[in-house]
Amino acid sequence: MGAHSSLTCGMHGARGGMGMELGKPVDGGVYVGYEDDKGVLHFLPMFSMKDDERARYVQGGELEGVKLTERTIPAEAITREYQWATDTFKAEGLTFEIVTPFFSIPDPATSSAQEQKYASCPATLIKVSYDNRKSRKPRRFFFGVRMDGMWTVPFGQDEHFKCLTQRDRLGIATEDDVETFVNFDVPKAMRRSHGNPHFLLGQTAGFIAEAKGGETRELLISVGYFKSGQATTGKRTRYWYTRYFSNIEEVLHYSLEMAPGYLAEAEARDAELKEAKLNSEQKFLIAHATHSYWGSTEWLDDGGRPRWIVNEGEYLMMNTFDLTVDMLFFEMQFNPWTVRNVLEQFVREYSYYDQVFAPGKPGRLYEGGISFTHDMGVMNAFSPSGRSSYEVSKLDRECFSFMTSEQLANWVCCAGVYYAQTRDDDFLVRHRGILEDCLRSLQHRDNPDPRKRTGIMKFESSFTQGGGEITTYDSLDHSLGQARNNIYLASKCWASYLALELMFTTLGATDKAAECVKSAKLCAKSLVKGYNKKLGFIPAVLEGGNKSAIIPAIEGLIFPHEMGLKDAVSPKGPYGDLIKTMKLHLENILVKGVCLYDDGGWKLSSTADNSWMSKINLCQYIARNILGVKSGRAGALADHAHAEWERNGSEFDACSDQFKSGVAKGSRYYPRIVTNILWMK
Amino acid sequence: MGAHSSLTCGMHGARGGMGMELGKPVDGGVYVGYEDDKGVLHFLPMFSMKDDERARYVQGGELEGVKLTERTIPAEAITREYQWATDTFKAEGLTFEIVTPFFSIPDPATSSAQEQKYASCPATLIKVSYDNRKSRKPRRFFFGVRMDGMWTVPFGQDEHFKCLTQRDRLGIATEDDVETFVNFDVPKAMRRSHGNPHFLLGQTAGFIAEAKGGETRELLISVGYFKSGQATTGKRTRYWYTRYFSNIEEVLHYSLEMAPGYLAEAEARDAELKEAKLNSEQKFLIAHATHSYWGSTEWLDDGGRPRWIVNEGEYLMMNTFDLTVDMLFFEMQFNPWTVRNVLEQFVREYSYYDQVFAPGKPGRLYEGGISFTHDMGVMNAFSPSGRSSYEVSKLDRECFSFMTSEQLANWVCCAGVYYAQTRDDDFLVRHRGILEDCLRSLQHRDNPDPRKRTGIMKFESSFTQGGGEITTYDSLDHSLGQARNNIYLASKCWASYLALELMFTTLGATDKAAECVKSAKLCAKSLVKGYNKKLGFIPAVLEGGNKSAIIPAIEGLIFPHEMGLKDAVSPKGPYGDLIKTMKLHLENILVKGVCLYDDGGWKLSSTADNSWMSKINLCQYIARNILGVKSGRAGALADHAHAEWERNGSEFDACSDQFKSGVAKGSRYYPRIVTNILWMK
Repeated sequence: MGAHSSLTCGMHGARGGMGMELGKPVDGGVYVGYEDDKGVLHFLPMFSMKDDERARYVQGGELEGVKLTERTIPAEAITREYQWATDTFKAEGLTFEIVTPFFSIPDPATSSAQEQKYASCPATLIKVSYDNRKSRKPRRFFFGVRMDGMWTVPFGQDEHFKCLTQRDRLGIATEDDVETFVNFDVPKAMRRSHGNPHFLLGQTAGFIAEAKGGETRELLISVGYFKSGQATTGKRTRYWYTRYFSNIEEVLHYSLEMAPGYLAEAEARDAELKEAKLNSEQKFLIAHATHSYWGSTEWLDDGGRPRWIVNEGEYLMMNTFDLTVDMLFFEMQFNPWTVRNVLEQFVREYSYYDQVFAPGKPGRLYEGGISFTHDMGVMNAFSPSGRSSYEVSKLDRECFSFMTSEQLANWVCCAGVYYAQTRDDDFLVRHRGILEDCLRSLQHRDNPDPRKRTGIMKFESSFTQGGGEITTYDSLDHSLGQARNNIYLASKCWASYLALELMFTTLGATDKAAECVKSAKLCAKSLVKGYNKKLGFIPAVLEGGNKSAIIPAIEGLIFPHEMGLKDAVSPKGPYGDLIKTMKLHLENILVKGVCLYDDGGWKLSSTADNSWMSKINLCQYIARNILGVKSGRAGALADHAHAEWERNGSEFDACSDQFKSGVAKGSRYYPRIVTNILWMK
Repeated sequence: MGAHSSLTCGMHGARGGMGMELGKPVDGGVYVGYEDDKGVLHFLPMFSMKDDERARYVQGGELEGVKLTERTIPAEAITREYQWATDTFKAEGLTFEIVTPFFSIPDPATSSAQEQKYASCPATLIKVSYDNRKSRKPRRFFFGVRMDGMWTVPFGQDEHFKCLTQRDRLGIATEDDVETFVNFDVPKAMRRSHGNPHFLLGQTAGFIAEAKGGETRELLISVGYFKSGQATTGKRTRYWYTRYFSNIEEVLHYSLEMAPGYLAEAEARDAELKEAKLNSEQKFLIAHATHSYWGSTEWLDDGGRPRWIVNEGEYLMMNTFDLTVDMLFFEMQFNPWTVRNVLEQFVREYSYYDQVFAPGKPGRLYEGGISFTHDMGVMNAFSPSGRSSYEVSKLDRECFSFMTSEQLANWVCCAGVYYAQTRDDDFLVRHRGILEDCLRSLQHRDNPDPRKRTGIMKFESSFTQGGGEITTYDSLDHSLGQARNNIYLASKCWASYLALELMFTTLGATDKAAECVKSAKLCAKSLVKGYNKKLGFIPAVLEGGNKSAIIPAIEGLIFPHEMGLKDAVSPKGPYGDLIKTMKLHLENILVKGVCLYDDGGWKLSSTADNSWMSKINLCQYIARNILGVKSGRAGALADHAHAEWERNGSEFDACSDQFKSGVAKGSRYYPRIVTNILWMK
């Protein structure tokens, strides 16, 4: 957790291996298999092959004139069980289990060094076993990895601890009785003609073990990562784990020593997901999202202070705020301190104050207010304070324009949920001024003239220099991409006012709280009024005759719900009209040809073929659990479709977010899909 | 020098850019060009394009329906002048000059910190100019680079110093009046629609300048590299330059500050090569070899002590000894201390003592002696002491077997040349024991029984565990690849005895010197006796009826020649018969179908289509300058052929060593070809 590293494999015939700080699978392979009595090597298909290699790895039989020496086990012989913290492949007596333990990361401010060491240790565990009970002869089996780099056999190991490392940055280790190898490939290592088990020009390293006749033999392997010294530029931070480990060997040794605890954590997570009242597709999506999330996380040490970063999948932007707000629910469940940490990074370094203008009239500027940057940098390069890597000016509602209003709402909604679930009063007191600035800023973006407010964002940030703001949905059309008069953003602004109301009330600022209520009601009223009976929904953008139908109109409902404001999201509560309208809106558009694909999967906008898994999963939860939309068979169909999009649309790229007609087209290797943690509530 | 970094470009349409610690060009591009009055951008073709980009960069005119907005300048419009330290491209008023200053690196033991800072500064210089004298309108021109990584705009610059850096590891800077940019590509930067000159998601960075009407405007740009902290594993060293620079900005600033000195050095080198009495093809080969050599060098700080490493081109093996011995002449000319440094690394950490056995009888071992490993590791991972990354046991005269005898001869020949040219008596005294061990080891590999010695290596190292040794020519057939009874190795052993004789005589060890003379004479006699009148040459291997003709039989002559032992290489001297036989051998085989290709290029072995440029260049020098073989028109033809092999056989991979029928087939991006420095003597 927080090591921004991943062992990626699973797709048959695809590249993979151990990678650090990447936005995609590393260009290597994972080699797990066994040797049969004839000396043929049987591999799980966790690596890619060049065409000239393929003849050797004949699938299913001997080609004419080619002696079968290696074989990839065919898909139909392999079973896979992908759970929350374990991923297990079984075939022909062989078991390959990747254990990715995860649990609450303790708050560095209040936990012990030992707890932090345990949580930050940058390693995962692997079990490889071979069931040789039916045979009398011993059989060899193996585990190996190949990456572009050379391996070394470090000093300081003995028969009880064997490890192989690459560039002091990553390594594998075991305490079991194995033969270690470094070679060009596994076949060369298994049939070594020369005298050296460690041929240092080889890029494949691993372990060979023997299962005696009549026994099942299991190896426990640690897979670790280590980046010493400076980890990022712009701000010169280190990985938090370097406080407790001084090299890769220590990481590997410690992870094996503490393996019982890690394995127990993994077992506990698996049991939790297993027991959840969800269908198997939903469980798959949660497990897949969770793996992809952790691989993107980075727990840094910035001069002694912790700094939590989640990288934006393949794009590697750091703490992209419109992802943070979606991953909020997952982080609140596991480690709320990371939410506080990120919110405070935004306040301290990535906030700004702007002016606003009416669309088309950039010459006349009004007071704007505080907002927050889209991100904090990219590819481990922190951007300068007050600037994201993403946003540039002079763009009118195009990709890379400013997301000033969206990020403002995101900060407020995150702060509201954080406070409501932790009751961290110190946080409120510390940021009282920021909360007041946020309220003023939200109102000014509605309209600088209080008499003309509708609760909905209509004024653009001066930072766009005459352009127009966008939302997180930057690759969709204006139905979701344009910020002003957008009902998606409006629902988040409504939620922001409710969050501020809660916090001001707690602070005793009753006048401010009353202002919030006023704006929230205005917003709700505008949305309800926006409902078009003829269309049967609220059009996405309340201007210019827009007729797009969008699911994320309902997104804002999640925040009051998560803040425990049951009345606010009840059809019988003060915003009952809004809630009822939202339900009607959703029920009417959740039909094929509008906001459903032919396979039953959800289409976020009727006018854009670009549907994001994280948002779908979030809105599914809102529909089922807040609006009480009965999903029934359509729901199961949708879950199946979404799981298939990942399995057969994103099979090379871990968990993806953006899909066009069920095929991943961006936002691959993504952390955001953990919105589906809500399903486990 | 010693930064193991390179700006690679030149091949049209090929990838390139700034790379660190690579064995190949980096996957990026270099963008140099100007904007015409219609706003079309004209680029030198120093980058690769995807197919979908190509339509925009139409060569020579507008495609139907596609407006020409970018153009790559066609090859016929470009001139290139590739000198020893500068490489200049000119086209359509644009000049792009890469300046790679090099000079003697001062001995760290006896020079000042300022001298070492100056020599180790990891930067090169670039001049980009645009001649706008014929126009009245201003025109913009640009320099940019793209690499896979994000750019930052560091603190601490002003209008006089502008720099852009990537991951604190590399950067570009100038003191000239330019607009700096970061963007997806140059066209987007030149026609920026948004408000931010530094769009931090872009992977292209550079400078835009304006040439006023009537003026020629020139920019001076620094291109720098910086790796902080640990540079290697196995041994934890740092780059020497980190003693003087603490970050990339300092490197860039210093290199611009000291630019006059660096430019003067480059100018001096250019003049030296220009004045050499060589044809233009030879000058090209020297310039090309020199660039490729420096890019492979690594000057490290190992706990305060300097450690010199030359990486083996694309293979990245460190201080491969059979390259060191060939690069010896270049290093002796520029910085002899690096030769001493490498020899002493071998003594201290990469030597071993073995036993020997007669071929086919590995069961009976005799005393062997000292030798040295093939290399010291690979890809910045030092191998354990006494072990190379390359050599493995149980191989019988195959690639990756031991080179025990070859590396022993290499140490002795390097030491002899080092001593003869420096008269560093401390070195001799310090290593007297090693010299004695070397003599004993050479003799034992001839034959443990003094009565059966022939001066030629016939016994195999016990480290092969029953296998057979090879030579540096590991990818050729036995004519050059097998060590025992090989006349190539024999000529080097002869040279080794002469080198030892010189050193023992100096040390006053007359008995040892006499032993050396005895063995040298035996060796010479065996070689002369090996001459086969019917064949007209000495067959490559003096066993098994071998009938291969090889050019490198003459290689050994270079060492006594470089040690100033004129008599030893004179046809009238004590080894006159050998010298005359060698001349006859060479003249008889330097014919088409034997050791010449159809294009006149040299073929090292009559039985292998695998000819190495470094060795060809070395043997050309020996033929012309030691044996007095008249080359005439054939020589000029050969030089042209060899230059063409590099230009049209290795056009993507800098200077290559191995060619099959004129096409580079390995050993690309190689440092070894600097053997051709000998031509400048």
